[in-house]
Amino acid sequence: MELRAIATVSSPLIRMSAAPKQGDEGAPDAWIVFDPSVLEALDGVREGDELIVLTWLDRADRDVLTVHPRGDATRPRQGVFLTRSPDRPNPIGLHRVEVAELDGGRIRVRNLEALDGTPVVDVKPVLGDVAER
Amino acid sequence: MELRAIATVSSPLIRMSAAPKQGDEGAPDAWIVFDPSVLEALDGVREGDELIVLTWLDRADRDVLTVHPRGDATRPRQGVFLTRSPDRPNPIGLHRVEVAELDGGRIRVRNLEALDGTPVVDVKPVLGDVAER
Repeated sequence: MELRAIATVSSPLIRMSAAPKQGDEGAPDAWIVFDPSVLEALDGVREGDELIVLTWLDRADRDVLTVHPRGDATRPRQGVFLTRSPDRPNPIGLHRVEVAELDGGRIRVRNLEALDGTPVVDVKPVLGDVAER
Repeated sequence: MELRAIATVSSPLIRMSAAPKQGDEGAPDAWIVFDPSVLEALDGVREGDELIVLTWLDRADRDVLTVHPRGDATRPRQGVFLTRSPDRPNPIGLHRVEVAELDGGRIRVRNLEALDGTPVVDVKPVLGDVAER
C-alpha cells in the first residue's frame, strides 16, 4: 500500500506552530500544484467547487495512539481515531476546501491548513444528495 | 509514504457487482476488525458516533484518470478527482458510517459499501461546529 504524491501544497504556512488546527479556523488560501502526469484527472473542476483533499502529513509521529484533544493538557487523553490529530498510525489529512482559482496545473483553494510542501495524495468531490450524483 | 492496515472490513459484500456505489445507497452493516496493536487509538468511541473511515480499495485500477460518472456510459467522461470512482492514482476510499455496536477489538458500523477483506487505513471523527471541538 504505497502512496504516490499527485500534487504538493504551496502555502504561506511554514511552521506547524503557525497553522490553525482546522481549515475553517483561519487557514489562508493555498495552491495545490499537480503533477503533470495526473492533470487529466482534474477534467471538469470549476471555480466554486467544494472538494475533499487528502494529504500525507509527513511531519507526523506515527507511533502515537492517544492524545489530549487539541493539545489541551486539561482535557483527558483520547484515542487518535476520535481526534483529528496529525499524529496517528497513517497520517492522512482530510481537508474540505473550496476552489478559488484554476491556473493550468494548479488550483488555488480556500481554507487549507496543511503546511507548505505537504504531499497531496487524493482529491474527491463533496457528495450531494443521492438524487444528484 | 507506506500505509499499514490498522483494521480489516468483514462484510457480507463479496463481489464488486453487488456493492452499492455509496454507503447511503443500501450498504449493509459491516464489522471493522482492528489490529490489536492499535486498540488504544479507539479509546472513547461510543455507540451512535459518526465516523469517517478511510480504506485502501485494493481491487482498484490506479492507472485510470477519467471515467464515466457512476459507470454510466451516457454521461461524459470526467476526471476521477471529480468522482468517487475507486479507480484513481491512490485508491483511498472515504466512508461516513455510524457506530452500531462495540465488541472488544471490533466495531459494527452501518452504511459501509467496502468489500469484505478491504484494508482500513484510518478512522476519524466527523467534526462538529468550531465551538464544540
